[in-house]
Amino acid sequence: MNLNVRPNENDDGSSGAAWRHKLYVIIFEADTPAGKWFDLILIAAVLLSVITVILDSVASIALQYQTILKVLEWFFTILFTIEYIARLSCVRHPTRYARSFFGIIDLLTILPSYLELFLPGAHFLTNVRLLRLLRIFRILKLVSFINEYSQLGSALAASRRKIMIFLSVVLIVTFLLGTLMYAVEGPANGFTSIPVSVYWAITTITTVGFGDISPKTDLGRLITSLMMLLGWGILAVPTGIISAEISAQKFKPTTRTCPTCLTEGLDEDAIYCKNCGAALPPYEHN
Amino acid sequence: MNLNVRPNENDDGSSGAAWRHKLYVIIFEADTPAGKWFDLILIAAVLLSVITVILDSVASIALQYQTILKVLEWFFTILFTIEYIARLSCVRHPTRYARSFFGIIDLLTILPSYLELFLPGAHFLTNVRLLRLLRIFRILKLVSFINEYSQLGSALAASRRKIMIFLSVVLIVTFLLGTLMYAVEGPANGFTSIPVSVYWAITTITTVGFGDISPKTDLGRLITSLMMLLGWGILAVPTGIISAEISAQKFKPTTRTCPTCLTEGLDEDAIYCKNCGAALPPYEHN
Amino acid sequence: MNLNVRPNENDDGSSGAAWRHKLYVIIFEADTPAGKWFDLILIAAVLLSVITVILDSVASIALQYQTILKVLEWFFTILFTIEYIARLSCVRHPTRYARSFFGIIDLLTILPSYLELFLPGAHFLTNVRLLRLLRIFRILKLVSFINEYSQLGSALAASRRKIMIFLSVVLIVTFLLGTLMYAVEGPANGFTSIPVSVYWAITTITTVGFGDISPKTDLGRLITSLMMLLGWGILAVPTGIISAEISAQKFKPTTRTCPTCLTEGLDEDAIYCKNCGAALPPYEHN
Amino acid sequence: MNLNVRPNENDDGSSGAAWRHKLYVIIFEADTPAGKWFDLILIAAVLLSVITVILDSVASIALQYQTILKVLEWFFTILFTIEYIARLSCVRHPTRYARSFFGIIDLLTILPSYLELFLPGAHFLTNVRLLRLLRIFRILKLVSFINEYSQLGSALAASRRKIMIFLSVVLIVTFLLGTLMYAVEGPANGFTSIPVSVYWAITTITTVGFGDISPKTDLGRLITSLMMLLGWGILAVPTGIISAEISAQKFKPTTRTCPTCLTEGLDEDAIYCKNCGAALPPYEHN
Repeated sequence: MNLNVRPNENDDGSSGAAWRHKLYVIIFEADTPAGKWFDLILIAAVLLSVITVILDSVASIALQYQTILKVLEWFFTILFTIEYIARLSCVRHPTRYARSFFGIIDLLTILPSYLELFLPGAHFLTNVRLLRLLRIFRILKLVSFINEYSQLGSALAASRRKIMIFLSVVLIVTFLLGTLMYAVEGPANGFTSIPVSVYWAITTITTVGFGDISPKTDLGRLITSLMMLLGWGILAVPTGIISAEISAQKFKPTTRTCPTCLTEGLDEDAIYCKNCGAALPPYEHN
Repeated sequence: MNLNVRPNENDDGSSGAAWRHKLYVIIFEADTPAGKWFDLILIAAVLLSVITVILDSVASIALQYQTILKVLEWFFTILFTIEYIARLSCVRHPTRYARSFFGIIDLLTILPSYLELFLPGAHFLTNVRLLRLLRIFRILKLVSFINEYSQLGSALAASRRKIMIFLSVVLIVTFLLGTLMYAVEGPANGFTSIPVSVYWAITTITTVGFGDISPKTDLGRLITSLMMLLGWGILAVPTGIISAEISAQKFKPTTRTCPTCLTEGLDEDAIYCKNCGAALPPYEHN
Repeated sequence: MNLNVRPNENDDGSSGAAWRHKLYVIIFEADTPAGKWFDLILIAAVLLSVITVILDSVASIALQYQTILKVLEWFFTILFTIEYIARLSCVRHPTRYARSFFGIIDLLTILPSYLELFLPGAHFLTNVRLLRLLRIFRILKLVSFINEYSQLGSALAASRRKIMIFLSVVLIVTFLLGTLMYAVEGPANGFTSIPVSVYWAITTITTVGFGDISPKTDLGRLITSLMMLLGWGILAVPTGIISAEISAQKFKPTTRTCPTCLTEGLDEDAIYCKNCGAALPPYEHN
Repeated sequence: MNLNVRPNENDDGSSGAAWRHKLYVIIFEADTPAGKWFDLILIAAVLLSVITVILDSVASIALQYQTILKVLEWFFTILFTIEYIARLSCVRHPTRYARSFFGIIDLLTILPSYLELFLPGAHFLTNVRLLRLLRIFRILKLVSFINEYSQLGSALAASRRKIMIFLSVVLIVTFLLGTLMYAVEGPANGFTSIPVSVYWAITTITTVGFGDISPKTDLGRLITSLMMLLGWGILAVPTGIISAEISAQKFKPTTRTCPTCLTEGLDEDAIYCKNCGAALPPYEHN
């Protein structure tokens, strides 16, 4: 993946400090054995660090292994801090890297332990969950290793407008139907406000259907039935129509053949063969 | 989007009142800076007005900010009333616009505040939710700004019959299976009547699965399993078959072979062999 | 739709009783005005009769309008009995019609009222729901009016083997995973037997997710996560791969062009132009 | 299906013991009447044996028919043991078969009864469910009879990398969003740890939506709405875009025009106009 960084070199092309260049090759490139090992160790460290955070979030495990988990967490924090400093020191424009996507990820994910050290806050519990969330972001460091991700990103960016149009239609429809159900069912049946009703409408149209809220009135259930058929139908109707098209082509192709050059698959309305120009006999449907 | 209105002009083509024409250009067209600004301000007003209605529906917020919300609502009502009158006054056929889709939307969405003023009713709560629903319809005023929506509408209209056929099959099947489950499970297990059972059947076939009603008997659960496989299968089977077709084509291309160099996989429409340049015999389908 | 019946005629081709032939034309064909009217009245009668059954199943409505509903039901029963006898009397082979799909539907759907008359049974409630189910089958009489249904049926029959293979794989997988969850979670967590666990597994793989049963253990939730990704992935993966294929073709087609005849879209590995046979310059990837 | 076994023969090609070869032909091949009968009886035995295990897991049935079920289970165990020994004795490399997929299945599925005989354990109930699971694996013996399964397996193996990439993206997204919801909602609302939150996130993105855990806070419900639109959108957006493409092609075909007769919509690969037979200029893509 192109990280858009350049090794720290003098303008005349000669390498600055040789160690900087060596470090760059190890960290940002994977051609040398050292570079490959660095990548593997980094992936392993990210995975283990994320597992540590996960285990720490399970109350039963956290209680029993609190010390070990804290030690491990500081180990990884220091490891990733060293890595971060190493990256900054061997690129040409450290500030540019620090402001890039991966630079921000790197910084965000080593902050938590330092924050916990310097800001023991009142809302301890919320801070803890938020800091765990920041640490979990380390998993995004793995994204740079897979090329296909950037291809996927480009493909998504290219279809950007179509996706926006489609989603805006879905959102408007969901919004109107959700508010309709709010008017029909009312707070007594769980539809306590328009935002909650729109949340329920999205639950229904996307066929998730938690069931924490569900319609109780007859009219509400009728409208809900239509919404469910809409959400599922948006998936089923195109799929069905495409399959019908493909089946139709397989079983009844245009078998019209040119008697001169024997080209098949000629259009039903063709008068001359598209391949040799000969005149065609009239086409009889079966 | 073509709103099918014409500016108010004399029959000989000369503009009637010049201000009417200026107003028309600003409101219905977006070529001039004034026209563009009008559109932007209108979009902003619609969005802010809708947000106001949403906030007003959340009990906690409504209690705290009741006065501000009421003032804002009247502000938007008067704003949209002025806009409505402006539109009517600068088109050639005001009654035609008033009866059009957007004309009705415009009128419906300014009515609520006036209704509340003149008809304080007994069922206050229901009226409030219904009036909020009418105000939410303002979001449809945004639809005129996106061209692709009318394309989407045309595509849907063109496939009208296929969609109807497909949905009617789904409805008949759902209807029969819902009534079957009504007969098997009965009111004791939540299937209180045929309409409720059909609502549950739609919940199941569209894979939404709220869980407010679920089968309890063994036979009921067996039939439900078949229904779930049907609803999900209608999505999965065509998708799987299409993928299998495409994979097969990728791995086993046309078996057309050049008799000279024995290269396989030549295009069906090729006249010369892409590998050795020799002329190819006509292709016979098997 | 071809009902595979022939009017009652003498073997020498001369019409038997003229009234029989007239009746046949009215009932089974739709070319004459009388034939068209018959069809419309029949469709209306079927729909109204089905609505009567639905209303009768709703306890509140049944209590209030019991007499009217009973009268209506007998009216429709007698109407459909007359229609059934008319059909039998004007076809050439009455027994063949009586044994056909539509013949059985016609008979089944007039039986309930007569059964209720002659067999007032002990399990009154169950009989009532089952008889309502039989009456609801009248909706299948509408199927003969839509041609596309038989097309749909043929398309399904043609893909029969593929569908069977696909479903058998899904069933075997569901079966094994359901039994695995039975072993892991056990009756204490709702997985009371293998059949119940398989019902739950189908609920999960088809993404319906009622929630009447859900995993409670950590290992169970892990296996469930894999099952959910499997069921949803079977839909998402092919769809995603097909879209990726189509996008790739749209954005990077084979732009290789023959300099001689300017044919585009030549294969990357072609040496000669498939259209004019001229030798091609080597292809450089970008 | 190729089981990759060879009959037991001497190296010089002459058959070893004739009975071994006869046994091999019956068991592993299906050309002779005896071979076909063996297959049918085996399929029947597998299905009946699996049904026995299922019935045994239903508490009410197990209580009533315990003796019969136990006798049947031992009958099938002995039957499959004889089959296993027969297979081992007539192939060339018994150890290779014993280590193959089907060899392991055969062994695993006859072990339970013997284990129960020799290891009556403390955790009787868990052992029972696990042993039922092992017996259920017999259903995999049926897999060897359907050829299409190996085709399906090959197709999956070929798309291996694409599937892995896709699933890894889904897992990373699910992981991050699940942890985000853990931070937002917290243990008080059911999101007791990161693993549980990720399980819930998978439930939501795959649109299963059990409802055992659901968001309670406003921010949580907002994030959940986005997750649901994402999971459903991954299915709906490509399907919709593909349908739009296909519709567009049907309504606006290639704009290739014949300069002589001005017919539009000519095939891209045509050399002569299908309408007037005139030679066509080469086609330039736009």
